[in-house]
Amino acid sequence: MLARHQLAYSQSQCARFLAELKDFIRFPTVSAQPQHTADVRRCAVWLADHLRQIGLEYVQVISTPRHPLVYADWCHAADRPTVLIYGHYDVQPPDPLHEWHSPPFAPTVRDNNLYGRGACDDKGQLFTHLKALEAYLHTQRTLPVNVKCLFEGEEEIGSPNLFPFLQRQKERFAADIAVMSDTRMLAPDQPALTYALRGGLSLELEVSGPRHDLHSGSFGGAVHNPLQALCEIIAQLHDHQRRIAIPGFYERVRQWGADERERMAESGPTNKQILGDAGVRKGWGEQGYSHYERTTIRPALSVTGITGGYQGPGVKAVIPARATAKLNFRLVPDQDPQEIEQLVRKHISRLTPATVRTTVRSFLRAKPALIDRTHSAMRAAARAYERGFGTPPVFLRSGGTIPVVNTFQKVLGISTVLMGFALPDDRMHAPNEKFHLPNFYRGITTCIAFLDEIGRTRLC
Amino acid sequence: MLARHQLAYSQSQCARFLAELKDFIRFPTVSAQPQHTADVRRCAVWLADHLRQIGLEYVQVISTPRHPLVYADWCHAADRPTVLIYGHYDVQPPDPLHEWHSPPFAPTVRDNNLYGRGACDDKGQLFTHLKALEAYLHTQRTLPVNVKCLFEGEEEIGSPNLFPFLQRQKERFAADIAVMSDTRMLAPDQPALTYALRGGLSLELEVSGPRHDLHSGSFGGAVHNPLQALCEIIAQLHDHQRRIAIPGFYERVRQWGADERERMAESGPTNKQILGDAGVRKGWGEQGYSHYERTTIRPALSVTGITGGYQGPGVKAVIPARATAKLNFRLVPDQDPQEIEQLVRKHISRLTPATVRTTVRSFLRAKPALIDRTHSAMRAAARAYERGFGTPPVFLRSGGTIPVVNTFQKVLGISTVLMGFALPDDRMHAPNEKFHLPNFYRGITTCIAFLDEIGRTRLC
Repeated sequence: MLARHQLAYSQSQCARFLAELKDFIRFPTVSAQPQHTADVRRCAVWLADHLRQIGLEYVQVISTPRHPLVYADWCHAADRPTVLIYGHYDVQPPDPLHEWHSPPFAPTVRDNNLYGRGACDDKGQLFTHLKALEAYLHTQRTLPVNVKCLFEGEEEIGSPNLFPFLQRQKERFAADIAVMSDTRMLAPDQPALTYALRGGLSLELEVSGPRHDLHSGSFGGAVHNPLQALCEIIAQLHDHQRRIAIPGFYERVRQWGADERERMAESGPTNKQILGDAGVRKGWGEQGYSHYERTTIRPALSVTGITGGYQGPGVKAVIPARATAKLNFRLVPDQDPQEIEQLVRKHISRLTPATVRTTVRSFLRAKPALIDRTHSAMRAAARAYERGFGTPPVFLRSGGTIPVVNTFQKVLGISTVLMGFALPDDRMHAPNEKFHLPNFYRGITTCIAFLDEIGRTRLC
Repeated sequence: MLARHQLAYSQSQCARFLAELKDFIRFPTVSAQPQHTADVRRCAVWLADHLRQIGLEYVQVISTPRHPLVYADWCHAADRPTVLIYGHYDVQPPDPLHEWHSPPFAPTVRDNNLYGRGACDDKGQLFTHLKALEAYLHTQRTLPVNVKCLFEGEEEIGSPNLFPFLQRQKERFAADIAVMSDTRMLAPDQPALTYALRGGLSLELEVSGPRHDLHSGSFGGAVHNPLQALCEIIAQLHDHQRRIAIPGFYERVRQWGADERERMAESGPTNKQILGDAGVRKGWGEQGYSHYERTTIRPALSVTGITGGYQGPGVKAVIPARATAKLNFRLVPDQDPQEIEQLVRKHISRLTPATVRTTVRSFLRAKPALIDRTHSAMRAAARAYERGFGTPPVFLRSGGTIPVVNTFQKVLGISTVLMGFALPDDRMHAPNEKFHLPNFYRGITTCIAFLDEIGRTRLC
C-alpha cells in the first residue's frame, strides 16, 4: 500500500490532531472586526509555531497593512514539482451569537461533528494539509514534492493585501500548482473537485435624509424616511422575473451550451438537495435555470445586512437620519467586478429620489474563476480522493468566491486545485458552523495521497 | 401683581431647580428596555421623595405589571376645582449612542440648553409643574386648587397598564380637568396649546425564510432572501402618490372643511419651518396637503427600524434566516387602531410571497384625540401662557400620540390641557435631546399662573 506509514501515523494521532484543531479554532480571528486585530495576530504566531513544530522551514509571520500572512516551506525534493498550499486562518463574524448552541470560539464535538466558527471554513480544512505534511515529515523525514505554505488572515475580507504582496515577490512563491481546501463536497460519500467559482462584489449603500433622527409623530408623513427609501431602492434591484434589474448587468454573462448544462445536471446537486441544504420549502430565482445553475453559472445579488433606526426590543418612535444596506453581488464569466460596480453606482444614483441622498462604498471585488478539469494536477487530485474516500470525485461549480484563485493565475501563472472537504450542511458563514470529523480524517488521508500522487506526476 | 411671591421664589431658586432636574435626568428610565427596569423603579422612588419634600401628600409608588406609577395629592381647597397633573418619567431609548455630543444620561448645559435623554420629553416639562406647586406651597402653604399628580413610567411604550389601573380606581382620580406638558410650542416666543393628537399603532413585521443563515455564495440566486422580501413588502406599503397602499386604510379618515384648514394654515408652522426643523431640503408626502396637514390631519406610516443580516463593520457573505422591521402608524380621527391593525395584517399576508413567511406582532395601539378649544380650562391656560411668555398661545394640532388623553376622557370623563414647553428643534426621541432653559423657567411661571387662573375659573 502506498504511503502506508504516513497513513498509519495519521490514524494513530487522530485524537491529538483534533485537540490541536480545537486550539486553532479558539482564536477569534474575525478579520472584518477591528477589535479582533490582536487575536488574528496571536493566531498567526500560533500557526507559525505549529508549522515549525511539524518540520517546515523558513517559517515567517509576514506583516501587511492589516492582518499578517504566515509562510513556511520545505524545498528539498529536487526535480519534483512544487506545490503551493494555500489556506486562510481568518473567519467570518460569528453573529448572530444567540443562535449558536455552543459558543463560536469554544469548539465542541457533538455527533461526530466539530462545532465552532472556522471549524470548516477554513481552519479545519487548512489543517488537513498540515497534518498530511506532518505525517510525511514525521515518518519519512522527507516530502515527495517541494512545498510552499501560504496562509492568509484576510480571505473573508477579500484578500486586499495578498495581490500586491505576491506581485512584489513573484519569484519567492514560484510553484507548479496551488492547492487549497475551502470548498464543498456533494455529500459525505461523494467528494468533489471544484472547477469554477463565481466572482464577487461587495458594496454598502447608505441612504441619508434628515440631519438627525426625527420623532415619527411630529414628522411622519412629511419627510421621506431613509429606511423606506432604502427599501424602495432595494426592491427595484430585481425585476418581476427575479433578474437583477441593472441596465447592462447581464451583458457579459457567458451562455453555456447544452453539453455543459447537461454535464452539470448529471453531476451537480438537484433542486431538492439545494433546497434541503438551505432549509427552505420553495425555491426562488431566475426563470429557465435549475437551482444549481442559478447559484453557479448565473449572477446573483444578496442583501447581506440592513441597519437603520431602532434595533432594540419594543418600540422607538423615530425616523432615522440614515439607513444602510450591505449588497453582495456574485459574478460569473465574463463579468468584470469593476465594470459591474460602475453599472451599480450609476443605477443607484438613477434610482435615488430627490428627497434623500445615497452613497455607495465598495469593500471587495473579485473576478470569477474557471479551472481546466483536464489539468494533470486535477487528475492527481481525483486519484487522491479515490484513495481517501473510496470513490472518485465529481466535478462541481461553486457559487462562492475565492479571490486568490485568480491572483495565483494572474501573478504566478498557475492553476489551483480546489479539493474541498466541507459538506453542504456545514453552515459555512452561519451560526453553528461545523466540520464533519470523518471528513477531517479522510481529508488528511486524501492530502497525504495528493502529495504522493503529485510527486509522481509530471506537471506541465 | 398676581402670585408675586410665588414668582419671586421660583426666580430665586432657579439654579437649584436646574440641579434637581439634572438629578432627575440621570436615571436611565428607558421603559422599553428590560435591563433598565430597576432604574425606572429607582427613579419612581426619587420622584415620590421629591413630591413629599415639596409638600404634597398621600405620596405613593404604585406597582403595575411592569413600571410603577407615582401618585401624590393636595386636596384642601374646598369648593375649588381639582386638577389632575399628568406627566411621564420614562424616556425613549437613547440609541444611536455615538451620535450624542454628551452622554444621554449625563445632563449637560450648553448655550442655554440642557442636553440629555428626557430633558424635554418629559422630565423637564413635568418638572415645571412640580416647581410651580413648590413655589405655592413654600410661599403660601396652600394651593389655589386641589391637585392630584399622576406620573407614569410607561408612556413611551404606550401606557399599557394605565388604562386598567384607572378603570379600577375611577373615584380616586376624579378631577375637573387634566393638564400635562409633553407637547411643543411653535417657536421660542410663540407658545401653543395643542388641541389634536394623532393616534398610534406600532407593529413589528418579521420575514423568515431559510432554517438558518446561508452562505450567500453557495445559495445566492436560488433562495428568496428575507431581507429582500422585507424590502419588497415595505416598498409596496406606499403607492406612487405616497399614500399608504393598504385597502380600506383611508376609509374613516375625517375630511376637514375649508374653515379648519385655513385656520391651520394661519396658526400652524409653514412648510419651510417644518423642513427646517427636520433638517431636510425637500419635503415628501401625500399630494394636496401642506406639511403641517400631512403630519396632523393625515395618517402616516414610518418604518422606525430594520434589523437583518450582518450589522458589523466590513462584510459578511450571508443570506439571513430572518429580517424584521418596526412599523409605526399615526392615525387620525376617525380611524380605529384595532380596525387598522386588522387591515394591515390582512394586507401583509396578501403581500407575502410563497417563498417566505411573515409574522406581525403588535406593540402599541392608541386612538387619535381632539380637545375642545373653547373649554374654560383651555382659556385659563391661554391666559397663563400670556403671563408666562408675554404673548397668547396659538392653537396647534400635534402629529404625536399621547394615549392617556383618550384614557382620561373615557375613564374619568375629563378633558386634558396640553400646555407644552418644548421647541420644534428639541430633538425629542433623537440623539442630543435638549430642553431650552428659558422655556424651563418661563414654563414654571406659566404653571404658577395656570394654577392661579384655574383657581379663579368655574369649570363646567
